Amino acid sequence: MRKEKDFIGEVEISDNVYYGIHTFRALNNFPNTGEKFNESFLWAFFMIKKAAVIVNYELGYLNDKIYESIIKACDEWEILKNDIVVDPLSGGAGTSINMNVNEVIANRATELLGGEKSEYIVNPLDHVNMHQSTNDVFPTAGKIAIIKELRELVENIIILQDNIQIKEKEFIKIRKIGRTQLMDAVPILLGQEFGAWADALSRDRWRLYKVEERIRSVNIGGTAIGTGIAAPKNYILKITNKIREVTKIGIAKAENLIDATQNLDVFSEVSGLLKSLAVNLIKISNDIRLLGSSSINEVILPKIQAGSSIMPGKINPVIPEYAIQLSMSVIAFDNLITNAASLGNLELNHLTPMIIHYTLKSIEFLKKSTYALKKYINLIQPNEERCTKNLMQSFTLITPLIELFGYEEVSDFLKKNNYNIEKAVEELSKKYNVNYNELINKLKSNKTAGLGYNLKK
Amino acid sequence: MRKEKDFIGEVEISDNVYYGIHTFRALNNFPNTGEKFNESFLWAFFMIKKAAVIVNYELGYLNDKIYESIIKACDEWEILKNDIVVDPLSGGAGTSINMNVNEVIANRATELLGGEKSEYIVNPLDHVNMHQSTNDVFPTAGKIAIIKELRELVENIIILQDNIQIKEKEFIKIRKIGRTQLMDAVPILLGQEFGAWADALSRDRWRLYKVEERIRSVNIGGTAIGTGIAAPKNYILKITNKIREVTKIGIAKAENLIDATQNLDVFSEVSGLLKSLAVNLIKISNDIRLLGSSSINEVILPKIQAGSSIMPGKINPVIPEYAIQLSMSVIAFDNLITNAASLGNLELNHLTPMIIHYTLKSIEFLKKSTYALKKYINLIQPNEERCTKNLMQSFTLITPLIELFGYEEVSDFLKKNNYNIEKAVEELSKKYNVNYNELINKLKSNKTAGLGYNLKK
Amino acid sequence: MRKEKDFIGEVEISDNVYYGIHTFRALNNFPNTGEKFNESFLWAFFMIKKAAVIVNYELGYLNDKIYESIIKACDEWEILKNDIVVDPLSGGAGTSINMNVNEVIANRATELLGGEKSEYIVNPLDHVNMHQSTNDVFPTAGKIAIIKELRELVENIIILQDNIQIKEKEFIKIRKIGRTQLMDAVPILLGQEFGAWADALSRDRWRLYKVEERIRSVNIGGTAIGTGIAAPKNYILKITNKIREVTKIGIAKAENLIDATQNLDVFSEVSGLLKSLAVNLIKISNDIRLLGSSSINEVILPKIQAGSSIMPGKINPVIPEYAIQLSMSVIAFDNLITNAASLGNLELNHLTPMIIHYTLKSIEFLKKSTYALKKYINLIQPNEERCTKNLMQSFTLITPLIELFGYEEVSDFLKKNNYNIEKAVEELSKKYNVNYNELINKLKSNKTAGLGYNLKK
Amino acid sequence: MRKEKDFIGEVEISDNVYYGIHTFRALNNFPNTGEKFNESFLWAFFMIKKAAVIVNYELGYLNDKIYESIIKACDEWEILKNDIVVDPLSGGAGTSINMNVNEVIANRATELLGGEKSEYIVNPLDHVNMHQSTNDVFPTAGKIAIIKELRELVENIIILQDNIQIKEKEFIKIRKIGRTQLMDAVPILLGQEFGAWADALSRDRWRLYKVEERIRSVNIGGTAIGTGIAAPKNYILKITNKIREVTKIGIAKAENLIDATQNLDVFSEVSGLLKSLAVNLIKISNDIRLLGSSSINEVILPKIQAGSSIMPGKINPVIPEYAIQLSMSVIAFDNLITNAASLGNLELNHLTPMIIHYTLKSIEFLKKSTYALKKYINLIQPNEERCTKNLMQSFTLITPLIELFGYEEVSDFLKKNNYNIEKAVEELSKKYNVNYNELINKLKSNKTAGLGYNLKK
Repeated sequence: MRKEKDFIGEVEISDNVYYGIHTFRALNNFPNTGEKFNESFLWAFFMIKKAAVIVNYELGYLNDKIYESIIKACDEWEILKNDIVVDPLSGGAGTSINMNVNEVIANRATELLGGEKSEYIVNPLDHVNMHQSTNDVFPTAGKIAIIKELRELVENIIILQDNIQIKEKEFIKIRKIGRTQLMDAVPILLGQEFGAWADALSRDRWRLYKVEERIRSVNIGGTAIGTGIAAPKNYILKITNKIREVTKIGIAKAENLIDATQNLDVFSEVSGLLKSLAVNLIKISNDIRLLGSSSINEVILPKIQAGSSIMPGKINPVIPEYAIQLSMSVIAFDNLITNAASLGNLELNHLTPMIIHYTLKSIEFLKKSTYALKKYINLIQPNEERCTKNLMQSFTLITPLIELFGYEEVSDFLKKNNYNIEKAVEELSKKYNVNYNELINKLKSNKTAGLGYNLKK
Repeated sequence: MRKEKDFIGEVEISDNVYYGIHTFRALNNFPNTGEKFNESFLWAFFMIKKAAVIVNYELGYLNDKIYESIIKACDEWEILKNDIVVDPLSGGAGTSINMNVNEVIANRATELLGGEKSEYIVNPLDHVNMHQSTNDVFPTAGKIAIIKELRELVENIIILQDNIQIKEKEFIKIRKIGRTQLMDAVPILLGQEFGAWADALSRDRWRLYKVEERIRSVNIGGTAIGTGIAAPKNYILKITNKIREVTKIGIAKAENLIDATQNLDVFSEVSGLLKSLAVNLIKISNDIRLLGSSSINEVILPKIQAGSSIMPGKINPVIPEYAIQLSMSVIAFDNLITNAASLGNLELNHLTPMIIHYTLKSIEFLKKSTYALKKYINLIQPNEERCTKNLMQSFTLITPLIELFGYEEVSDFLKKNNYNIEKAVEELSKKYNVNYNELINKLKSNKTAGLGYNLKK
Repeated sequence: MRKEKDFIGEVEISDNVYYGIHTFRALNNFPNTGEKFNESFLWAFFMIKKAAVIVNYELGYLNDKIYESIIKACDEWEILKNDIVVDPLSGGAGTSINMNVNEVIANRATELLGGEKSEYIVNPLDHVNMHQSTNDVFPTAGKIAIIKELRELVENIIILQDNIQIKEKEFIKIRKIGRTQLMDAVPILLGQEFGAWADALSRDRWRLYKVEERIRSVNIGGTAIGTGIAAPKNYILKITNKIREVTKIGIAKAENLIDATQNLDVFSEVSGLLKSLAVNLIKISNDIRLLGSSSINEVILPKIQAGSSIMPGKINPVIPEYAIQLSMSVIAFDNLITNAASLGNLELNHLTPMIIHYTLKSIEFLKKSTYALKKYINLIQPNEERCTKNLMQSFTLITPLIELFGYEEVSDFLKKNNYNIEKAVEELSKKYNVNYNELINKLKSNKTAGLGYNLKK
Repeated sequence: MRKEKDFIGEVEISDNVYYGIHTFRALNNFPNTGEKFNESFLWAFFMIKKAAVIVNYELGYLNDKIYESIIKACDEWEILKNDIVVDPLSGGAGTSINMNVNEVIANRATELLGGEKSEYIVNPLDHVNMHQSTNDVFPTAGKIAIIKELRELVENIIILQDNIQIKEKEFIKIRKIGRTQLMDAVPILLGQEFGAWADALSRDRWRLYKVEERIRSVNIGGTAIGTGIAAPKNYILKITNKIREVTKIGIAKAENLIDATQNLDVFSEVSGLLKSLAVNLIKISNDIRLLGSSSINEVILPKIQAGSSIMPGKINPVIPEYAIQLSMSVIAFDNLITNAASLGNLELNHLTPMIIHYTLKSIEFLKKSTYALKKYINLIQPNEERCTKNLMQSFTLITPLIELFGYEEVSDFLKKNNYNIEKAVEELSKKYNVNYNELINKLKSNKTAGLGYNLKK
């Protein structure tokens, strides 16, 4: 055990951890919610510290030893991150989290210089946090993490879209009934249904690719409230580029650092586009649920696990159900992020930790959903027989015959034949002495603009 | 009274209205919610009908008389719209609304041809709705209306931003304390606070200007489910351009009409950007509430109406309160729109009427909010005296003195002087024999990167 | 035109309206949102004024003439309400609305005393608003209106539940397949499905009946911030009872008027229970959509209007779609109400008008939904043939045979017979020399605990 | 490594874990979301298994060895719970979770009987899951866990309320200005402000205490879809009581098991009441933020950690900020739970896992919030000096003097004395030759109904 002290008093901290007294206070103050930091966020946080120490060293604010030890500690972020123990939803607009990182780096760097933890040869505030404020480090780390995560998400969307388009081609010749409001409407091709999903996803891909532009503008260098107080001009000019260099994420200095510090509408914007992906994933998932349902059964659901602890043989659309639950969560998080973004006061939004946490969580949930769906959709098989059967049973299919025999006659034969279209056509062809096969083929292959059949000729 | 008939039976309809039996049924089926159609939506609906009749006439599907009478009726839309009486939230994915428009036009056109209402010389379905389906007319009308309304909203945002920037310049020399988490932080200029609002709004302006691109892709010509069933190729090729010509709204034919019919993620996207404007309006409004509050009082709220029925002289921030209520509604509507957009099934989203209704309502609410705020912000006056007083009382202002006299000494003098900074400085200057005025001016005018004062020199 | 004056200046007001300058200011300040006041709310507002004038008269604060004229004006509320023109979402925590009512009553009462509008023989503040503040009148009116509207809603729920229970009995013998996750599960009775809806509604009925207790505690008499400032003790003691007498709504004086003025959690509670009704209405509506869908088709949807402008004969579940749209709105409003209720500051919630407006709007939407659904459900007919067909096609139905012939044998026969259960049973009965009819009847009528069949004997 | 097999094929499972192939499949199918099961939920799940095995044993369905080994395994739940590794948001309506528990118990019981994992002397389905279905076990476990967690939450609310009431008494004599819409209104006592919070919490206490009644009705025994299929009557009659005995949670058998299986409105109801607590916690937290803000400063915020990494001495309202973030999350979760509850289909709600997960998460978040707030509020100190100063600066305080000297005269003296009330009174008393102290005391101690001052005498 080692001792640290602040204005409240002295505490004892385990030698096994790298954090210090500020983290210790935060651990006591904020009961653990069970939420975990997004890993890219922690990475971005350490990388900002690294970039800052480089700039400060280059400008002569730090000596070689301090500089090297901090760099080394930052590069050990994947181990040190285990000592970032403050809650992601802690109060203080991120101060405790920033201090946790500062302390962990300082203690590790101190160790690297031969010191002991809490000896602070490298100081958390004077060295690690030099020329920074939680006000600028925290949202900047958030934006970098979001960009990194978004790119991975876009990769997933591309693969999902590709997989769906493979099915689109595979199923493009399978004719079936289209449905509006769950009622039989007019014919469509099974492949076209998959194609509609793929095209919806291509919009998401584009949206989320483009949004990177909007989120890349960061307030680092603004320190407290964006005025750059306590930071030298040279540092402010260089820090953004240095972070870009270190992270390979194409951030840019916000034109108005004060605005970029206090206004978090950009997070609401990003989240608002994430929810549009959620919208499409839910639509696709529900369509799979319907198409694969016992009653429609036009696609055969992948048998990836048993469906019931009591009904042998039952197969459920478990992956669509998983994706729906995660995507609905994203929509709810969006509402939360938006409300929180609206509640900033004057020079800062005190809810910044929550806003960034849920934005990253949304991306994570969407990454999991797209990943699970892409594997699942790969395994979907068509049920051609059922597609044809459902189509032929569909009352609306008969529409073209009305032109030939009149509405009432067609209607009568349908009723007499118990709405079995093939039988009705058979009897109609007998009565009117028309070739049955010709008639039935006409119905089956009818051409329309776009699809396959057209009342206008 | 005149009579009309459908498969359910015969009904009597007043001679004073232009609608027919389908509208009559809908009126009975859907209890009136009190919601009203957006006027741009009704205009767009009539203009689509007009464009369709032109194309159909040019392609030889309609004779001169029918054509001319429908055109004339469509041009009377501002009168006829009073007979669009179906509820905006009616079921049927918009069918009742489409039929209401069809019937009103058909009856008016019939009248223009010397017929009587219900005589239907011009037929609602065969003529007015020719080659159309609710599935394509309804969302297309929605998108046109949204683009028109968005443009008006962007105009409002520009003016609001301009008005705020005028204040930014006016107040740019007024030094005051900045606040984070409602606690005094470091100094800022009053003008900078207004500048941060203006810059946030410039993002909204850009977002909502750019989103027009996304919403302009329409499914007209797709008829039922987007397959173009029952519509001739020539018509499908021409209809979008004709509508663009008639409405002067730059819509374009969707590449995949099936996708564009069933997937409404684009509405969720637009709404998701509208809510980002709501975020900024709430932030600005709450900032005005705080800055103008009795306790901060750094701006003088416009006295535009009495504030209390019991406390004479009370002035409340009524316009920010109004804008907050409308903007919070927009955020809630966004959640609703998003959930509804996610719940489409297969070839159609049965909740389309609600989605379009609330999207247009959100734009309307934001137009009202920005309009009211722009007038209000024009009238805001600074309270310089209070800005200075609050700044000088701020404990954090004293920070630079710590470098000169040490933390404890400064702290002691502050306590002895009851945290009156000016008195503390006076006594410190006496004790240390420094020039008081120089010291106090140093504090007041301190330079920072970005703002005005900097510990680093 | 007549003239009125306030601290801003003089204005001209039309002689045709009863309102005065405060209303005039509000009309200019708050652009019209299109939202309308709930009528019960306006009624409650006038009745509170009436009760206050009675108490004030009884305590000797008003003379006979003033008293009588105000009473008379209040009793004309159904006409005067047309002059309540302030927007329901106006800022000022309801002050403009209170003043609108005060002015309309004062001018009408003045007229009744032979004066002219604006002459204010009866004064809006000194007489009509005597011993009141917007802080207490506004939420009290809201609570009274909510109770009145809730009772009407509960009436509707009861009728809806009754109508469903009639169907429950009607359909109690119709066996069909139950479905979980849209996949065939085990058998159920059609009547049991209706019964489950009815029992869900009975919870709503109880919930909304009980919540009246929670909302009845009002802060009238608390005047500004609930301290009762400017109101005499006698008045405070009597006013709640008098309102109860006048309105026949069983309100009670809140124990802590300060709490009841500033904390609006009760509205969030009521709205939270309203949304539970919305949950059930959406569930029921979606079930009707599924059961009546082309693919399941176990109930026959009422043909209450044509379903398509392009597909003749299509019938859509328009009323469930209407109810879903309204009920989803209620859920979104609840989120809005809750967020708004959470954002009160110190002695008042500045968002009170919005909170009460949307609570009443939710009740209205639910009244419309339940009304429309009850008429619709009355007309639902079962499709017995289809119920049986779907049941017999269901793979899970075969489960009991596994005990007799083993899983693999049953499975083989099913596959050979293309999952036609009847054929499979036929062949199984041949092979094993069992009586076919007995077997098939066993499957059809199988008894379970609760339902009708049971593997355990 | 050991091997298990299902209809998909054979897999290898580590010997270190107790789960089996179904869990293995689920782990592969559902990417880990990072969400964790609520511990009470896992406890409840094991206890239901325990109760079921007791009943089944008592009814003769299980032999001594099987019975004893399962009981023992269930009692080891605190160790075995580490092997419940399926994701809380997995698809399949909870089947994977149920199977995970079944497998873990079966393998452990098998071990206890001297067998090896995967040998399944005790079978997960035939023994552990006997007479159960995920459809009934899962929601029953959810309800039991909710009741247990609710009781702990209510305990926390009581303590929080008590602590606030201690402050209410402590601060009851401190006069200060009340504020509406952030503007000075009329005087109030600091203790009354705390009292209003306490009374709001007493409603939550009551609400959440009473809701236990509503959630206690469970569907255990209903097995699949609530029909009790595959379960013997005796078992169905006894199982609920046995669970009550084992858990000491007062559950009761639902009257309609089918309804209780498919309709989850009760979760929406509970969540709707939880959000009302969130409303109050946010209101209280924001009030603390305001009262403790630099500008109002009427209470002294506890100094529980440093507030800034750059501004020494800054203290932030970190606990209110933490509580706001958690409480806002609860409101968002409520919206999610409600939407999910509304989306059940026919005999089951496929989103049940999400609904129960977020309900329990809400309770957990509220437990943390109330716990953190109660410690924090204990440490709040009044700033009496500032209360008086703010009160005396308040323009509205002067209101009573208007009766003595007239509105304009008072107004003039205020302006001349720069709105310093004490100076204005001093000069007024000189001019009118009234005793200054008497006057100032009248203002300070003014009595109202309820509070302390009253214009009516």
